[in-house]
Amino acid sequence: MSHPLFDKHRATLEAALSAIATRGYWSPFNEMPSPKAYGETAADDGKRAFDARLGKKFELGQPGQTGWHSGERSPYGIALNVEYPVCDVQTLIDSAQKAMAPWQAIGADGRAGVCIEMLDRLNRNSFELAHSVMMTTGQGWMMAFQAGAPHAQDRGLESVAYAWREQSFVPKEAVWEKPQGKNPPLVMKKNFQIVGRGIGVVVGCGTFPTWNTYPGLFAALATGNAVIVKPHSNAILPAAITVRILRAVLSENGLDPNLVTLCVAPSREATKALVTHSAVKSVDFTGGNVFGQWLIDNCRQAQVYAELAGVNNIVIDSTDAYKAMMRNLAFTLSLYSGQMCTTSQALFVPAGGIETDEGHKSFDDVCNDLSAAITGFLSKPEVACAVLGAMQSADTVKRIEQAESGALGRVVLRSKKLEHPEFPQADVRTPVLLACDAADESAYMEERFGPISFIVRVADTKAAIALSERVTSTHGALTAGVYSTQQDVIEAMTAATWRSKVALSINLTGGVFVNQSAAFSDYHGTGGNPAANASYADSAFVANRFRVVQRRVHI
Amino acid sequence: MSHPLFDKHRATLEAALSAIATRGYWSPFNEMPSPKAYGETAADDGKRAFDARLGKKFELGQPGQTGWHSGERSPYGIALNVEYPVCDVQTLIDSAQKAMAPWQAIGADGRAGVCIEMLDRLNRNSFELAHSVMMTTGQGWMMAFQAGAPHAQDRGLESVAYAWREQSFVPKEAVWEKPQGKNPPLVMKKNFQIVGRGIGVVVGCGTFPTWNTYPGLFAALATGNAVIVKPHSNAILPAAITVRILRAVLSENGLDPNLVTLCVAPSREATKALVTHSAVKSVDFTGGNVFGQWLIDNCRQAQVYAELAGVNNIVIDSTDAYKAMMRNLAFTLSLYSGQMCTTSQALFVPAGGIETDEGHKSFDDVCNDLSAAITGFLSKPEVACAVLGAMQSADTVKRIEQAESGALGRVVLRSKKLEHPEFPQADVRTPVLLACDAADESAYMEERFGPISFIVRVADTKAAIALSERVTSTHGALTAGVYSTQQDVIEAMTAATWRSKVALSINLTGGVFVNQSAAFSDYHGTGGNPAANASYADSAFVANRFRVVQRRVHI
Repeated sequence: MSHPLFDKHRATLEAALSAIATRGYWSPFNEMPSPKAYGETAADDGKRAFDARLGKKFELGQPGQTGWHSGERSPYGIALNVEYPVCDVQTLIDSAQKAMAPWQAIGADGRAGVCIEMLDRLNRNSFELAHSVMMTTGQGWMMAFQAGAPHAQDRGLESVAYAWREQSFVPKEAVWEKPQGKNPPLVMKKNFQIVGRGIGVVVGCGTFPTWNTYPGLFAALATGNAVIVKPHSNAILPAAITVRILRAVLSENGLDPNLVTLCVAPSREATKALVTHSAVKSVDFTGGNVFGQWLIDNCRQAQVYAELAGVNNIVIDSTDAYKAMMRNLAFTLSLYSGQMCTTSQALFVPAGGIETDEGHKSFDDVCNDLSAAITGFLSKPEVACAVLGAMQSADTVKRIEQAESGALGRVVLRSKKLEHPEFPQADVRTPVLLACDAADESAYMEERFGPISFIVRVADTKAAIALSERVTSTHGALTAGVYSTQQDVIEAMTAATWRSKVALSINLTGGVFVNQSAAFSDYHGTGGNPAANASYADSAFVANRFRVVQRRVHI
Repeated sequence: MSHPLFDKHRATLEAALSAIATRGYWSPFNEMPSPKAYGETAADDGKRAFDARLGKKFELGQPGQTGWHSGERSPYGIALNVEYPVCDVQTLIDSAQKAMAPWQAIGADGRAGVCIEMLDRLNRNSFELAHSVMMTTGQGWMMAFQAGAPHAQDRGLESVAYAWREQSFVPKEAVWEKPQGKNPPLVMKKNFQIVGRGIGVVVGCGTFPTWNTYPGLFAALATGNAVIVKPHSNAILPAAITVRILRAVLSENGLDPNLVTLCVAPSREATKALVTHSAVKSVDFTGGNVFGQWLIDNCRQAQVYAELAGVNNIVIDSTDAYKAMMRNLAFTLSLYSGQMCTTSQALFVPAGGIETDEGHKSFDDVCNDLSAAITGFLSKPEVACAVLGAMQSADTVKRIEQAESGALGRVVLRSKKLEHPEFPQADVRTPVLLACDAADESAYMEERFGPISFIVRVADTKAAIALSERVTSTHGALTAGVYSTQQDVIEAMTAATWRSKVALSINLTGGVFVNQSAAFSDYHGTGGNPAANASYADSAFVANRFRVVQRRVHI
């Protein structure tokens, strides 16, 4: 008997399966925050729902509650003051364990159906989620809506599709009949049960609390595991809204809501105790190298899926669309003030300059023209504020100040602090652009998260490609780009990225940017260089989250 | 254009894909060493080929050779004196890296075709391989033939099928066309390249040098990686013959033979240097916990797939076929003198005895009857020698002596040393059977590899099931069994094995044994308890051995 939610969402699942197999454009969740897509009252309803959370206790009905926690600081300077339940970790673990047996029992189909119902419900709450993402991360509104809601939901659905596909290959039962020559055959009935490995902990990040969380969350859930969501201390609200919705869907469908809980850990030590608990069998993490490496080194009882720091880079060899290239780069470096794991940090430019449709451009021309392109793009304050958003963390502001000190290279473009017309306390910053030499490795060859990029002078294009390969192989990268009119350069860069295992964008001059990754089509991360040990999403992201336990008996 | 070997073996691949999807009985490699299956001269040819290796230098034509190594000691006492090339590790690594680019270029189809050609060629050399397995491991002839040749080849093909299936889901290219309202759509062409993670090292074991090696070897190869085979110091010959055949197939097909090399490491330190090399990205291992755990702890640059020690166990609650149960258990405990990772070590029997078709049997009856069943089964020397084989290692002999000292429990059945009619120097030993109490955990709750089993007195069946779950969860198990006429007992044991994640055999009384695992049908290991962190074979065994590197460009 088929699960009613599997039947309800079968067409969506089938379309998602087709999308991951063909990897063309597809999305079931509309990325435009329009009344046509979401209903006439959706925007107002969502804003009201968000406002109603502020200054209140956020009830989740979780077991083992011992107190309340608050303390989020909005990068836009508004008062949040939401209080979240703090629950005893062992109680959350015990409750999660208990919830897994009925979750196992409904099978892969049932779990896929429930997960898609959850995503559907999240989608209907996209405006509330978007406001919560915007106000906790400092993203601009459009990014907060798109990346925070429909695109995050896409990534969650992509995980569900991969998880269902892998599980669908495991037959429920088989008859094994082995001939024995003239004797009767040996005949056995075998049953194959899919069991989750155990509790998954999903550790959220401060900049993309839903987009970076949903892939692991839904991969773990769909493969039969309970999930404890451990949000970033400054981006709890989007996680809490998500968990609340998921728990509601579970309850409505006769399942134990404690399959998904929120763990607001009052300290780093409490988080460490959670992630190293023997019952925790997977940890999904996005964030810095220090804690990420700690997780990999210490959570030996679990599979750790980690997206860490990297040095995203672009090789600029030549172009037949100089202005468009500059516009494209200016947008990439400005978007969310470079507070993306995919923002380019190092642009490798030959010392002798580059050939373009506007003639030869020297290294300094490139520096100056990119500087001008950024300044021009951000010249209108309302555009600038919408694109840049606000500084998510004081550490990023410090890194900007360090970059401007000149310690890391020649300052080509200084960062400006802008006034936000709507949020006077928001800390809005434009990008810093530095120029340095390839030899200055200590400057550009570590991640400097935020709007800090380097134009790196390299001997020539060949050296640039070799440097890109080395940087990516040794320090990691989620994105790489190349601009060239020469086929042999593009081929050499392609081969280099095969070796260093990074996705390559070639000659982006239009409405697609190297730092953007489309669900169902682009693999976000390869899992093959130090920037991430997994990809969102592929078979490897889901296949090791469940195990098959067989039994066999003669019939 | 399709690869000719893909076309040649397409039907085999398709049948293997169907087999892993349905998991009924299937095998392309005949398990009977008969002239009908292998040709009239195959047995003699294979024996001659094996004999011709003895006392000779085994030429492999590998790069960086620095000397020769020998030292295998046959458990059957014959002189082997084969010398193997010792090669510089860095040279093997460099050569392997170089060989990977053309291997990547032929794609998943080409690699599957070449791998199946390799397996086909191994199959034609089954007799030579079987003699080499028998004489290095001490297995009896029939097991050496079946497990060493066709069954190992089956496991290799199973890996190839999984690997090809996962790779087949990655489209070579896609057109991504995103609508932009009234504006023209964004259109990109995307290419997806499958790249191996890097060099795989396959560490062989002393008891099953092909069966336990081929899954990892072919999984790594088929997913685009080079492989360095590091054989057990006492079972080099089967690995060397395998590598030689694989290199020949590569050369014949215009590929670089250094994609597969043999690394005879003169010391444990040399092995450690190999497996921790930064270019090594996967390690497959079968063997003891000490080195296995060392690999997991130290090869942090690689994915480690490890099959380790465990405490395989059986719960005996009741039976309606007492004699047949005893016969089945006697065979299981005797086969290859229990030198299998799947041999049952702990049999849990209620203190109050069990109900059977022959009436109530007390705990002591069960002990005595199993003892008698083993003695009876091994009463004919020729049967005994064929089933038991010879002691693979002196450590196992020591463990038998320790068990007979009474230190671990009451000795129910002593081991006997048998004369082998054909190999007078072979050390042939019958099983030791001990009885102990459930409280004597230090006795039975660690792996005692070899023909040493415990009949453990437990309070009742419920306690036995709980103990089985705890032993498996904490110490690992590859196999579990239950004998019961009660449906509720079988269901409780089933649920326990779901939690402890071990394959369950129910009421085996005929020609299938708990320690046997059929390729394409039984998952060998679940990867979910301490006995193994992976299964042979499933999607998880292959999906993380390759990565997808994309590139995208506007069209």
